[in-house]
Amino acid sequence: MAWLHAFPFLGVLAIAALRYACVTDLRFNNSQYDRKPNVVIIFADDLGYGDLSCFGHPTSHTPFIDEMANKGLVFTQFYSTSPVCSPSRASLLTGRYQTRSGIYPDVFSPGDIGGLPHNETTIAEFLGRHGYKSAAIGKWHLGVGVNGTYLPTNHGFDEYYGIPYSHDMCPCPVCFYPDGSCIRPCRNNEAPCPLFGNTTIVEQPADLISLTKKHIDKATDFIKEATDARNPFFLYYASYQTHHPQFAGQRFTNSSIRGAFGDALAELDWSVGMILKTVKDAGIENNTYVFFTSDNGPSMTREIQGGSAGLLKCCKGTTYEGGMRVPAIAYWPGVIPPGRTHELASTLDLLPTIATLLGKKPPLRLDGVDMEEILLRHGKSKRDTFFYYPVGADPRFGVFAVRYKQYKAHFWTKGSGLCGQRNPDDDCRITALRTKHNPPLLFDLDADPAERYNINKSPKGKRIIPFIAKLKKKFDERMKWGTSQIRRGANNTLIPCCNPGCTPFPQCCHCERGKSSLVEMLWKYVISDDT
Amino acid sequence: MAWLHAFPFLGVLAIAALRYACVTDLRFNNSQYDRKPNVVIIFADDLGYGDLSCFGHPTSHTPFIDEMANKGLVFTQFYSTSPVCSPSRASLLTGRYQTRSGIYPDVFSPGDIGGLPHNETTIAEFLGRHGYKSAAIGKWHLGVGVNGTYLPTNHGFDEYYGIPYSHDMCPCPVCFYPDGSCIRPCRNNEAPCPLFGNTTIVEQPADLISLTKKHIDKATDFIKEATDARNPFFLYYASYQTHHPQFAGQRFTNSSIRGAFGDALAELDWSVGMILKTVKDAGIENNTYVFFTSDNGPSMTREIQGGSAGLLKCCKGTTYEGGMRVPAIAYWPGVIPPGRTHELASTLDLLPTIATLLGKKPPLRLDGVDMEEILLRHGKSKRDTFFYYPVGADPRFGVFAVRYKQYKAHFWTKGSGLCGQRNPDDDCRITALRTKHNPPLLFDLDADPAERYNINKSPKGKRIIPFIAKLKKKFDERMKWGTSQIRRGANNTLIPCCNPGCTPFPQCCHCERGKSSLVEMLWKYVISDDT
Repeated sequence: MAWLHAFPFLGVLAIAALRYACVTDLRFNNSQYDRKPNVVIIFADDLGYGDLSCFGHPTSHTPFIDEMANKGLVFTQFYSTSPVCSPSRASLLTGRYQTRSGIYPDVFSPGDIGGLPHNETTIAEFLGRHGYKSAAIGKWHLGVGVNGTYLPTNHGFDEYYGIPYSHDMCPCPVCFYPDGSCIRPCRNNEAPCPLFGNTTIVEQPADLISLTKKHIDKATDFIKEATDARNPFFLYYASYQTHHPQFAGQRFTNSSIRGAFGDALAELDWSVGMILKTVKDAGIENNTYVFFTSDNGPSMTREIQGGSAGLLKCCKGTTYEGGMRVPAIAYWPGVIPPGRTHELASTLDLLPTIATLLGKKPPLRLDGVDMEEILLRHGKSKRDTFFYYPVGADPRFGVFAVRYKQYKAHFWTKGSGLCGQRNPDDDCRITALRTKHNPPLLFDLDADPAERYNINKSPKGKRIIPFIAKLKKKFDERMKWGTSQIRRGANNTLIPCCNPGCTPFPQCCHCERGKSSLVEMLWKYVISDDT
Repeated sequence: MAWLHAFPFLGVLAIAALRYACVTDLRFNNSQYDRKPNVVIIFADDLGYGDLSCFGHPTSHTPFIDEMANKGLVFTQFYSTSPVCSPSRASLLTGRYQTRSGIYPDVFSPGDIGGLPHNETTIAEFLGRHGYKSAAIGKWHLGVGVNGTYLPTNHGFDEYYGIPYSHDMCPCPVCFYPDGSCIRPCRNNEAPCPLFGNTTIVEQPADLISLTKKHIDKATDFIKEATDARNPFFLYYASYQTHHPQFAGQRFTNSSIRGAFGDALAELDWSVGMILKTVKDAGIENNTYVFFTSDNGPSMTREIQGGSAGLLKCCKGTTYEGGMRVPAIAYWPGVIPPGRTHELASTLDLLPTIATLLGKKPPLRLDGVDMEEILLRHGKSKRDTFFYYPVGADPRFGVFAVRYKQYKAHFWTKGSGLCGQRNPDDDCRITALRTKHNPPLLFDLDADPAERYNINKSPKGKRIIPFIAKLKKKFDERMKWGTSQIRRGANNTLIPCCNPGCTPFPQCCHCERGKSSLVEMLWKYVISDDT
């Protein structure tokens, strides 16, 4: 830097300027954003921290989500509240830990009696009070119950379209990828997956090949209609992808070098692209807040067709980082400055943040905090703790792990069959039984995100552990566990069936699908032609 | 998509268009690029596949390299030829496997007799023939020898500035981060690290705190002087960072939430930013080809201060992906379209690619292939194989592993102490001794980049293994092993020493540093003030 020698003070300025070059310009004026923004939450299923191209996967191809990440705010320390599905979804929609609403110990089955209690306030109900139209499209998994009492339209959503639980909770559908085989032997005493339109079954078995496209059609119709009616809206788009068994529409089958998982991911990526395109084309990009995340870490039970937690330890089903830290992107052009944040945040924080963005008081007794400061100014999180509930949450053990700032203490650990039999890490496999740690294992997640180097015996560790132990004690003591909705059990007659009088029930549940529309025929023509 | 129903054919067009939206526009005219481009190779040390923010690390802060990645072409399947330093550097500079030049079985020590043979043609020599000025700045590690016969200025470089081996090959310097302690007990019978200017020692011990800044000053001076003289140039900038023991200038000390490794990485990132800024400010951005990569995978021997291979298996010192797949970015605004490529490529390919970019014939008998098609048109690689030599390369075993397209066969595996004692994967630790696999372990790296699911017993595996075994046999049989330069051994009198008559030799080697310049004083002032 010869010029630096000649003009040293200029050099100082140049160096100072350089420190901030390439860093997002946070000075753009976002103080006047629309106080009734549309809200879109895109919730992926079992998508791991390391599965997206923009989160480092070497062979995933996710150009639409990458573009969203590029123009949005990427969270690198964002958590779901459970390493499995139903509890995680309950927290996202209510801003409260799943234990309060009774969505434990694990997940709902098709004939279950229980569901998300009606005294919980969902994001849809909250927004409905402020004039929003809401649609839930995709996987629900918070109960069906008698007469569909727990379906989304009874939880504040104006519309619902989707399968109300996991698509692996049905016997072999013919269209499972790539060879029609199930993960386990066919469960021939179960009902085919039902596709609901509001509280009515419109297709059974649901055709997985056309499923994503139909969902996207519904989502784009909803966005356009609400926009045309000048009605602020909330779209909760809960994808089935990339849950096992992986499937993809014809257009995406064999489209990816990553195999079956990559194909499912490519279709998910396309859906995100379609939603963002619809928002943009409708001219509402600058007053629509979009949030993308996943319900829990990756399942590796299908091994080579499984997901990836990247550098994080273990997978879905565990309270290690791989089980509960998920990819997350906030997107709102002109309002949320692009960039990356290492701040601590959670699905719990979505509801209170939406309330703040609206300038309204959130519902009472939330566990979430608002992320406005992070979103609008890349500022600090209001959250310095996070509590990790395991699968099989139980008041006798309370939370398995506690994060305080960068420190995470594991009081209990347990492996999971979802990490795969060939997981190279002993701690992750199902053979790692529930183990108490006293003192707890302690990790510095900023320096050691892979949870490899226990520092509970270090001077720093010894100082911080009693404090974190107190946090756990206080949290567990104050937690009011709602009655378990999942332990209410199942009743076979509640299994969703489009022709309930049929025999043998429930495997006989079957209704002819509606005739293919011209568009669907055309779609098939396009995909067979250009892939 | 209500409009789709109304105008189905428009829909088809829209869908087709969408497939290509957000994908890099490859149609920009780059056929007329400068046929004498400047060439800059930035070679990081022990930087793992998962260490950069743009390759997925959750707490690394690498805004300058991220920006380079954003505007450049990111390689996700790029390999160094060795899991340790000297052999990897030999291949990069010569386009030939290290076994040909005799840079095996491991790495050079300070008093070593041997070095990179003079009959090898380096990139600097090749470019020198075409009128380029060349400078090597930073870590050399290809020998010093009698009268510095193996130093860069005797290998085609016009200038050299740097420590000619690893900065851990000296006794404890006072400035090691963060507490002055070495990784091992102080080796008091060794010479302090010498900093060379061409073939003369200009500082001993080299001050690590100011090292990066001094290197960047040299690099920027070189770029500006060559530009002012209208001379095409080649800059080989070989950083010491992020090799252990990690160090950083005052400005970057405690600058990172990732700790000591993050601080070293932040300084490396800053260096990259400074080089790119200098190129841009000199007005030569559109005729300068910049390539960033690393010599091998991460060392984890310092555990929490170690690097990360991301989702890849194991680390430096092994022939698993974590040992030899490295981050890589090609950058040439206006000529290389931004994007990501999954194509197979290697440090071996840098020299032949440079030759192609110049429109000149490369030196004879190279192992590399040219990457022009990948760089300019995001096209296919000319490489469909890659051969993995281990540390301790030995003709009795030949290559340990072979990659053919997406398949990698491990004929031999071995763990490494560099993966750390607490590595959760048994295969990675030093206790995993050299093991022969017959049939070889087989992985599909596109679907299974983490090398978890051996498919050697699958029908596909059984078909492909004999073919890959033949590739190995042919490669090993045809390899002409040069005489090992490392086995020529050491001679204590060759240890670089600025005052060679001193006693006790060599630990007495010590020369007062030059007085701090005004700029250096100012620099210290700036950093104490603004960090």
